[in-house]
Order: sequence, then C-alpha cells, then structure tokens
Amino acid sequence: MSHKSANEVPAEPVRAGSGTVRQVLIGPDEGPNFSMRRFTMEPGGGMPKHTNTVEHEQYVLGGAARIGLGDEVIEVTQGDVIFIPAGLPHWYESLGPEDFEFLCVVPNGPDEIRIVEGE
Amino acid sequence: MSHKSANEVPAEPVRAGSGTVRQVLIGPDEGPNFSMRRFTMEPGGGMPKHTNTVEHEQYVLGGAARIGLGDEVIEVTQGDVIFIPAGLPHWYESLGPEDFEFLCVVPNGPDEIRIVEGE
Repeated sequence: MSHKSANEVPAEPVRAGSGTVRQVLIGPDEGPNFSMRRFTMEPGGGMPKHTNTVEHEQYVLGGAARIGLGDEVIEVTQGDVIFIPAGLPHWYESLGPEDFEFLCVVPNGPDEIRIVEGE
Repeated sequence: MSHKSANEVPAEPVRAGSGTVRQVLIGPDEGPNFSMRRFTMEPGGGMPKHTNTVEHEQYVLGGAARIGLGDEVIEVTQGDVIFIPAGLPHWYESLGPEDFEFLCVVPNGPDEIRIVEGE
C-alpha cells in the first residue's frame, strides 16, 4: 500500500511533446497490472499525432484541450473521460488559459510510441 | 474510442456503504484490461472495513476523507494518490464539508467484497 500527494511526485519532460511533463503516480513497481500517470501540458503545448501499442484510459483534471482521435477532433475540459484504444492515432493541443492536466492509465508492459509523420 | 463527461454517467448506490454512489466511467465493455470508476461519498458517509480480491489505484478529486489501510489511518485531500493491494482491509469516512470524490481503477475480472466484522 502507499499514500502520496501527486504534487510530490517528480515530473519528467515528455520528449515527443512540447511543454509537456509526465508524473508516474503509481508505476509497475507498485501496481501489478496497470500504471497511473498524470500529464501536464502548458497552454500551446501538446503532443503530435502518434500511436501507442497500449490503450489509454484518461480523466481530465483541469484546463482544456483539443484532442485528435483517429479522424475525429474533440474538445475536453474537467471531468471528461476519454478511452483511446491501442493503435489509434491521437494528438493533443493544450488550449489554455490554464495548464491542461489529465490522468492516463495504461496496462503494464512494453509500449511503443510511433509518431505519425507527414499529415 | 469514446469521449464522455463523467457527470453524464449514471450513478448507482453502493450497497455496502452509506451515502456513497459509484459511476463506471470506463467499464470492461470498453477497456480490455481495467476499469475506471468514480466514487462520491457525502459528508459522514463512507464504507465499512472490507477487503477486495483486486487491487485499487486511486486519485482523490475533491473533498476530504479518513481512510483505514490495514492498521494505519490516513487523511486524504485533492491530488492524493492511494494504492491498496488486493486483500488489504480498508475503510472510508468522508469528512466534509464537500463530497469526497475519488477515482478508483481496478483490473477487470471477478472481485469479491468481504466486510470485516467485529472490529
């Protein structure tokens, strides 16, 4: 068991993104099946179109963003829930004025991030 | 893929608790490996000491609560992260003045809730 404040967890820049940091709140060292991460994207920051080999279950904590999911574009705010299946191309753009902050839960195990170029 | 507001998801009372409702934000019909649920406990509400056969990964969205984890008692507020391993006896007491609200992610598959009596 463990108890911590998310604000105490170290944040690491997400290299594939801009103005984006990631915190591993519960990682594979604690959770046997899945990991809980928190992403924070500055206004104007985000991540380019990419795919993952694992699914994402996400909950928006604050801020606002435009998100591309396959051919759809959605806008999300606090309390929104997004399910992104493995392999679906997706991207993020933080709209401001606050940081866009969301939880993203993924199964443990290898994930490969592929940037989708030329679109 | 899916996108919804958590506020649109139906809430069902948690029978084992008091003043407590549960919303399944992403269930086994969508997520292949784990489910994301949101619990809301009125001030004074909560859940008695119990065990589950699955682990919990939790994130506090708002309010405050006292939580028993094995022999420890902790107090939690917004942004706190709790990992409860499978089988560990635990309980919740919502402290108010706001509703205590948290996400609880569990692996898909059968879970058995056992109330721990006589303590």
